[in-house]
Amino acid sequence: MRVLYHLPLSPHCRKVRLALQEKRIPFDLRNERVWERREEFLQLNPAGMVPVLVEENGLVLADSYVICEYLDEAYPDTPLLGRTHAERAEVRRLVAWFDGKFNDEVTRNLLHEKQFKRVLNRGNPDGTALRAGYSNIKGHLEYLGWLAETRTWLAGNSLSLADLTAAAHLSSLDYINDVDWTQSDGAKEWYARVKSRPSFRPLLSERVSGVTPPPHYADLDF
Amino acid sequence: MRVLYHLPLSPHCRKVRLALQEKRIPFDLRNERVWERREEFLQLNPAGMVPVLVEENGLVLADSYVICEYLDEAYPDTPLLGRTHAERAEVRRLVAWFDGKFNDEVTRNLLHEKQFKRVLNRGNPDGTALRAGYSNIKGHLEYLGWLAETRTWLAGNSLSLADLTAAAHLSSLDYINDVDWTQSDGAKEWYARVKSRPSFRPLLSERVSGVTPPPHYADLDF
Repeated sequence: MRVLYHLPLSPHCRKVRLALQEKRIPFDLRNERVWERREEFLQLNPAGMVPVLVEENGLVLADSYVICEYLDEAYPDTPLLGRTHAERAEVRRLVAWFDGKFNDEVTRNLLHEKQFKRVLNRGNPDGTALRAGYSNIKGHLEYLGWLAETRTWLAGNSLSLADLTAAAHLSSLDYINDVDWTQSDGAKEWYARVKSRPSFRPLLSERVSGVTPPPHYADLDF
Repeated sequence: MRVLYHLPLSPHCRKVRLALQEKRIPFDLRNERVWERREEFLQLNPAGMVPVLVEENGLVLADSYVICEYLDEAYPDTPLLGRTHAERAEVRRLVAWFDGKFNDEVTRNLLHEKQFKRVLNRGNPDGTALRAGYSNIKGHLEYLGWLAETRTWLAGNSLSLADLTAAAHLSSLDYINDVDWTQSDGAKEWYARVKSRPSFRPLLSERVSGVTPPPHYADLDF
């Protein structure tokens, strides 16, 4: 069976899980405690990071960008990157937005500070980082809300990897109760739609040891 | 004419310039002082970052990932991403390595601290960041040297976007004299080969106001 090495709260891993589910590609999940630097795992990915997908034929795909581009090439039914050059440019622009800009400005400042430092016993969250994260997420929710209100899905008329990437980051942050959904009705309504998809169910039912999500986390009518 | 908005020392912009040159796609360059947050530019890319490519038909492509994937789809002669699934996975893994891991561990700690802080009058480089950058680059040069010694090009038998991405980061760092080439003969020999390609000439002859590169920077037999 195809295996995905992952960490439950990593947005990059969540993105890949959602893409696999939307494409109905079966896979087994393996928790990889990357900080233990397991030798067999480093042979799969010398970068020592998740996600890593190992295909049934032995092909190893490391990094969520590599995996998602591969999935759309190898399993073109249910395309997630769009069809025309313009559609693909817009889907990928938003993937880069959330995995790059949003990740730097929000995810690292909140999720890394609060969750990953705790798991790795690296001390308390840095107050400056937390303040920056809470301040930055406002502008991002506003932009996301504007996209959601002017289009059917974030990148256009179809659900795409842009929606899955944004929802992956937001769901990880929502798990640690760091998304104030009252800030944007458009963003909230869009997230409720993504969250209701069957592909999202495994994420919503999963629990991470030591952290209890807020009651609205798994609620489809939050 | 096709226009690329860029900054001369940005590795992500250099990667796109090299890809365009290798594919012999003509383009005009425009320096975009992104920190001025020019309204017309923000309309092209709300993220406010370079590179941005505007095609002759008006199609706007923002972010180096978006541009490079597009270039290989729209101009498939001289493919830069490989042909088989395995080749493409390896090229993209190394692109992600240099634009992700190397960028976080080395480029941000050295180039951003020394050059971008100077341009933006944001104070002196942070000593801890510089020390981390100089320490981290050693392991990366070692890995790069190992790849170069065991393969013709970094990702396999053909020059690919992996070589262009790695060379883009290293050339920006070499411009500020932050690469100690004595650390890896393999890396040095590989960089000499990439640097000798016609696609590299415009980068090597360009000068950035206020920073003089070391004498070996443009020397093909450094």
